[in-house]
Amino acid sequence: MFVYADNAATTKISKAALDAMMPAFETYYGNPSSLHTTGQEAAEQLLAARQSVAENLGAEAREIYFTSGGSEADNQAIRTGAILGAKKGKKHIISTAFEHHAVLHTLNKLEKEGFEITLLDVHKSGIITAQEVANAIREDTCLVTIMFANNEIGSIEPIAEIGAVCKEKGVLFHTDAVQAAGHLKIDVKEMNIDMLSLSAHKFHGPKGVGALYCRKGILLQNLIEGGAQERGKRAGTENLPAILGMAKALDDACGKIDENAKYVSAMRDRLIEGLSKIPHSIVNGDTEKRLPGNVNMCFEGIEGESLLLWLDANGIEASSGSACTSGSLDPSHVLLAIGLPHEVAHGSLRLSLCEENTPEEVEYIIETVPKVVDYLRNISPVWESLEKGEISHVI
Amino acid sequence: MFVYADNAATTKISKAALDAMMPAFETYYGNPSSLHTTGQEAAEQLLAARQSVAENLGAEAREIYFTSGGSEADNQAIRTGAILGAKKGKKHIISTAFEHHAVLHTLNKLEKEGFEITLLDVHKSGIITAQEVANAIREDTCLVTIMFANNEIGSIEPIAEIGAVCKEKGVLFHTDAVQAAGHLKIDVKEMNIDMLSLSAHKFHGPKGVGALYCRKGILLQNLIEGGAQERGKRAGTENLPAILGMAKALDDACGKIDENAKYVSAMRDRLIEGLSKIPHSIVNGDTEKRLPGNVNMCFEGIEGESLLLWLDANGIEASSGSACTSGSLDPSHVLLAIGLPHEVAHGSLRLSLCEENTPEEVEYIIETVPKVVDYLRNISPVWESLEKGEISHVI
Repeated sequence: MFVYADNAATTKISKAALDAMMPAFETYYGNPSSLHTTGQEAAEQLLAARQSVAENLGAEAREIYFTSGGSEADNQAIRTGAILGAKKGKKHIISTAFEHHAVLHTLNKLEKEGFEITLLDVHKSGIITAQEVANAIREDTCLVTIMFANNEIGSIEPIAEIGAVCKEKGVLFHTDAVQAAGHLKIDVKEMNIDMLSLSAHKFHGPKGVGALYCRKGILLQNLIEGGAQERGKRAGTENLPAILGMAKALDDACGKIDENAKYVSAMRDRLIEGLSKIPHSIVNGDTEKRLPGNVNMCFEGIEGESLLLWLDANGIEASSGSACTSGSLDPSHVLLAIGLPHEVAHGSLRLSLCEENTPEEVEYIIETVPKVVDYLRNISPVWESLEKGEISHVI
Repeated sequence: MFVYADNAATTKISKAALDAMMPAFETYYGNPSSLHTTGQEAAEQLLAARQSVAENLGAEAREIYFTSGGSEADNQAIRTGAILGAKKGKKHIISTAFEHHAVLHTLNKLEKEGFEITLLDVHKSGIITAQEVANAIREDTCLVTIMFANNEIGSIEPIAEIGAVCKEKGVLFHTDAVQAAGHLKIDVKEMNIDMLSLSAHKFHGPKGVGALYCRKGILLQNLIEGGAQERGKRAGTENLPAILGMAKALDDACGKIDENAKYVSAMRDRLIEGLSKIPHSIVNGDTEKRLPGNVNMCFEGIEGESLLLWLDANGIEASSGSACTSGSLDPSHVLLAIGLPHEVAHGSLRLSLCEENTPEEVEYIIETVPKVVDYLRNISPVWESLEKGEISHVI
């Protein structure tokens, strides 16, 4: 059996999204900035896509800026908050320790440029409270950037409450919704979100395209200078095929968001239940406020990379953390942020499901993972020491 | 008859390039950073594409960084030159007045940040000399950025000579080769190019993808921070479908570069010959050192936008300048840079051909443009004044 259970890393594009791209390759191939018919047809399609994306987020079309993906959108939003803040002499930014690296590395760079960064503790559950945000806001705070849902452990933050706090305090609020868009209900107005980033390939859209919602009235700052595309805020010929694919994928995902969440979270819960029977295992993150498709567990005494490779050999494709850091030997910064010791964080497994997965696949995972964990523990010196009682349990 | 003659704005993707993308949507859909089979298959495809793009530029695979397009690549290259220069106390940059806005607007921003910018005169021909570059280089010059070929008037710069000068003087040299790649032979090593930008959709590849060549040894600076993709220099999940499409399109274009140039430039020359018979017309740019597909002319006494719309109504799709600035009412900065007065620059027409165009289409353009120009002149008060001798000719 083959099971793709790494949908948080990337999803396979849906047939509907791919079909939506094709006319932009073959018919609406003009440059949307061109005045001729082929260009203007492309411009009309672009506008319709912008309208559709906006509607699915509770935004207006003119508040949607298409980007090359979630990382670019995160960079641009955070830079915008920082630049606008600095103009008013406000150089303090609040975030969390377990944001995606597109956020954390941008914040690191801003710190070197003289900004002060407060990273809130995310606790064992991976969930912060709006009160903690309120407590951290200072006179000189210019931006709060907190992810909608975590990419590794799936914990869902109280975004509407944080938005209300930020609005009350007059601080810009950005959320990296890369893992949430298309999976959780988002209404930027109701939730008082000022800026929001999303990426199409996380909800069965194409790679290489994302969107940045930026509330009207906020002077978005360019990351890419040049032509007047995207209201002058993001230069470069618009990637119309990908934008049409994204709009279709988002519309499809939002149209059946409850149905998908119910189906996928039932598989998630069954998976957690089944794998929790493995001795010396731990479920990372909150079990309730959790992305429908996210399972993240640690198995004591084994090494995550070995686990992945053996699962792969058995047809199960999963991840030990974020794909963006898979090449790294460091343990996940997310798991360290929720308080796991290094040696346990090394043995993590993320299984991320989508509506294309089946209960049969879930049962196959439940059968297979214990065997692989057992095999790896049998060849693990750490496990031997644990079994002999030479070292104490680390979980 | 329908004639798409706006290939400098964007080209229609080739069937071969589109076919090359499909397996990345349907089979190699994994995240190339993932350790499992689907991810590693994607990573192998990515490497092969990088190798192919590198070979077609005379570069090494590890010197190719995939971006979301030419504008992003230009921004990143110029920022890199500026940041590396500033570290050595060198804050002077040389460019030309008729670069693409992705270059000029980045330079404008750097000027506000304290850099000094020298924009070289491009003369009536649109061609600068290496000697002029050499004369402009100072002790504190950190970067020379000069386009390979101009996007509006097609003039080709002496890139190899400029590269030699920059190498001798120890100054970084970037070239925006967005219009040249796939159309003119490029060898970054022979030409002593340190950084080069290209965009796939200008040579029948997909939109939303480009590449930045950055010579090994130059510490490329991030524009987008985040994951460790592209050797840590450009964050964001790799857009594999588009990258595969770009690699295929570039390989095809470079494989028949002489053949295409011969066929397309013959059409270009016929077009220039035919349209030059229109009274009070002028050919903009050099007639020899010119992109194979580029025709750019001004017709006295008419307004470019009207010309475009009437040509469009007759099935001919063209442009008055860069698509990136088509929305603007200002005359082309390129035509002003080569010394045209405002009122003449307003009446420009760019026809950009590719190997998909035919001699029959060219004859149709030659028949149609004079009729439209004639019609517009008949309703133009400027033309009436010119005819009556009330004002002198402006060309």
